[in-house]
Amino acid sequence: MLAKGCHGVDADALTTARSALMAAAPLVHCLTNTVTQTLMANALLAVGAAPAMVDEPLEAEGFAAVASAVLVNLGTVNERTAVAMRLAARSASAAGTPWVLDPVAVGGLAFRTDLATELLDARPAVVRGNASEIMALAGAGAGGRGVDSAAAAEDALDAATALAARTGGVVAVSGETDLVTDGSRTVRIGGGSALLTRTTGAGCALGALVAAYLGAGGDALTGAVAAHAHVALAAEAAARVAAGPGTFAPLWLDALDRVTDLGPARVTA
Amino acid sequence: MLAKGCHGVDADALTTARSALMAAAPLVHCLTNTVTQTLMANALLAVGAAPAMVDEPLEAEGFAAVASAVLVNLGTVNERTAVAMRLAARSASAAGTPWVLDPVAVGGLAFRTDLATELLDARPAVVRGNASEIMALAGAGAGGRGVDSAAAAEDALDAATALAARTGGVVAVSGETDLVTDGSRTVRIGGGSALLTRTTGAGCALGALVAAYLGAGGDALTGAVAAHAHVALAAEAAARVAAGPGTFAPLWLDALDRVTDLGPARVTA
Amino acid sequence: MLAKGCHGVDADALTTARSALMAAAPLVHCLTNTVTQTLMANALLAVGAAPAMVDEPLEAEGFAAVASAVLVNLGTVNERTAVAMRLAARSASAAGTPWVLDPVAVGGLAFRTDLATELLDARPAVVRGNASEIMALAGAGAGGRGVDSAAAAEDALDAATALAARTGGVVAVSGETDLVTDGSRTVRIGGGSALLTRTTGAGCALGALVAAYLGAGGDALTGAVAAHAHVALAAEAAARVAAGPGTFAPLWLDALDRVTDLGPARVTA
Repeated sequence: MLAKGCHGVDADALTTARSALMAAAPLVHCLTNTVTQTLMANALLAVGAAPAMVDEPLEAEGFAAVASAVLVNLGTVNERTAVAMRLAARSASAAGTPWVLDPVAVGGLAFRTDLATELLDARPAVVRGNASEIMALAGAGAGGRGVDSAAAAEDALDAATALAARTGGVVAVSGETDLVTDGSRTVRIGGGSALLTRTTGAGCALGALVAAYLGAGGDALTGAVAAHAHVALAAEAAARVAAGPGTFAPLWLDALDRVTDLGPARVTA
Repeated sequence: MLAKGCHGVDADALTTARSALMAAAPLVHCLTNTVTQTLMANALLAVGAAPAMVDEPLEAEGFAAVASAVLVNLGTVNERTAVAMRLAARSASAAGTPWVLDPVAVGGLAFRTDLATELLDARPAVVRGNASEIMALAGAGAGGRGVDSAAAAEDALDAATALAARTGGVVAVSGETDLVTDGSRTVRIGGGSALLTRTTGAGCALGALVAAYLGAGGDALTGAVAAHAHVALAAEAAARVAAGPGTFAPLWLDALDRVTDLGPARVTA
Repeated sequence: MLAKGCHGVDADALTTARSALMAAAPLVHCLTNTVTQTLMANALLAVGAAPAMVDEPLEAEGFAAVASAVLVNLGTVNERTAVAMRLAARSASAAGTPWVLDPVAVGGLAFRTDLATELLDARPAVVRGNASEIMALAGAGAGGRGVDSAAAAEDALDAATALAARTGGVVAVSGETDLVTDGSRTVRIGGGSALLTRTTGAGCALGALVAAYLGAGGDALTGAVAAHAHVALAAEAAARVAAGPGTFAPLWLDALDRVTDLGPARVTA
């Protein structure tokens, strides 16, 4: 539980961020992978945001400039979508629109590792990944074997801090306990459910929800923590009734819609 | 409820169209977006059609010529798939195969707006969109901010009528009450559920079901109305048992399969 | 039921393969279609494998070399992904990594038929398809109209045997009763549920599960049979509680996770 008045973020600020998200219905422009787009779009709809997946280079620049927030997820990036991602990230940056980078599987694959490193110059408001990805992007690790990660979030604290210093933004590391830092303040979010790791795209959807919170106007640290708390609380509710990893996903979407009070989340500053 | 003998379509004609669809099991060639393909394919399977998503330019022309009907949905169109869409639309048109255009997010984005305008020359049997999209395509509006629409279907009646005159086909506008017109006759379909708007791809799937009804041999107005009535009735049934937007989607597919009598739909001519 | 000691595979070998899969958590590199990627990834997660969809040519070669197994599925192949598929298949072949070819809709479409034929040179450990696809790939039939197949698996026995002789591997034909052959031994798997044919991607997911079993180290015949038995048993369990084709899919994923004993499968050698 979060102690009121801690120097991170407090429970009231999280619940206020949730209300602001519902009121703003932010348009989230997602340049993302083809595997988890559907869950991502449905998660955004469930929390009250409006998703739009536009990754044609001829459209991405202009669309990013009018969106409330932008998400760039490298899951199935290719040469064409990489062009769109560069344009969208720079366009968002130039327009002062917050954008989130999800460096999926960065580390082991040179093409996407180079792209992610280049995208850091457009100063993502939040970078969200697992420990392997964050360590690889910070230059501190060899990367995982894909989207999963053997390392605990805490292992990536130094890398996350260094990365936050480089972008001037926030870095979030997913794990059994998540870790969100702006380089000086670090917040941890516990709870959730192991079924999240058995649902393709749950982490990707989390990245999109971070973008949704930022698009609703909150500061990056509060928004990132609120998204993680929201996901964790919904996962706990869904896990109580799910019969397995297949029925978990729709129940998690139901719960994302239903959760309005982020106070009960296990957030510690 | 639909009055028998009205000059639009009657309830018996709709239920007959449903039976014809099950008997024909039409092959629906979909050139569509990557976000909602899965729901679209499952919706087609649920109603008794056979989906095939083929969007490689080297294959699209030939495949469109042998399909029962073709759907072109611009959701995540890119330069490569635009080539395939042009080929498929012209091929369908030349073969006398009915095809449906879903001009997703047309209006705000020049690339797809130009493409949709060009595709009208291949005379889609049905154009299906929300009010913003239909108004933008008819040259009567500035377009929405993406896939959602602030405008009611009725606001797009003049635009739909003008567009139908241009294509010689039918235009369908989705909204709280849907509107389907061939330029002279206009039919309205009520009912459904707000949960459809919280499920990514429900509108896209509707476009594909219109194509399925046309592929089973019905006239464009009856087929388009039948698809809207089918979707609405299934949504009502699913909404009665769904616990939220996540569980709604699979239950809606179950209901699409189960609905065989379209008579109870709230259709007015 | 499988008679112990038959010259095909026995029930103990199948259950042992299931345990080995859970222990190995193989990384399965999928170059696959955009329609059914999500179900495929979730099916792999459900059985205990780790999916990674990487189809950028700049990444596919290197990634295939480090994966436990590779799946190539031609569902929505295009010129770009065809390049990645060639690189991945050759890379897997050179590294001694087992790979599976799913020749979706081969036969009616020249581009993918030529590609599938070329890929046979990289000697897939298993080719998995429906009867139309296997007959077309073996040069024995004209192909189906898409992903469905009017022919029974047994009709493709000669074609499957010829194809197995050509690749030196195993060929699996899906149908009401599935057929798996290495050219000399032929195993049949019954059971399952017709709801599998009404769920887009169930066949694609089966192909990926074959790859997962091979990636866990088993021989190709046992691994292919185990995957088919696993899918069938899970389908039977899901069909008992599903209310229709929509609710079947998540329940099938739940059951894929839960099935650990493949002994009850209707396997005959």
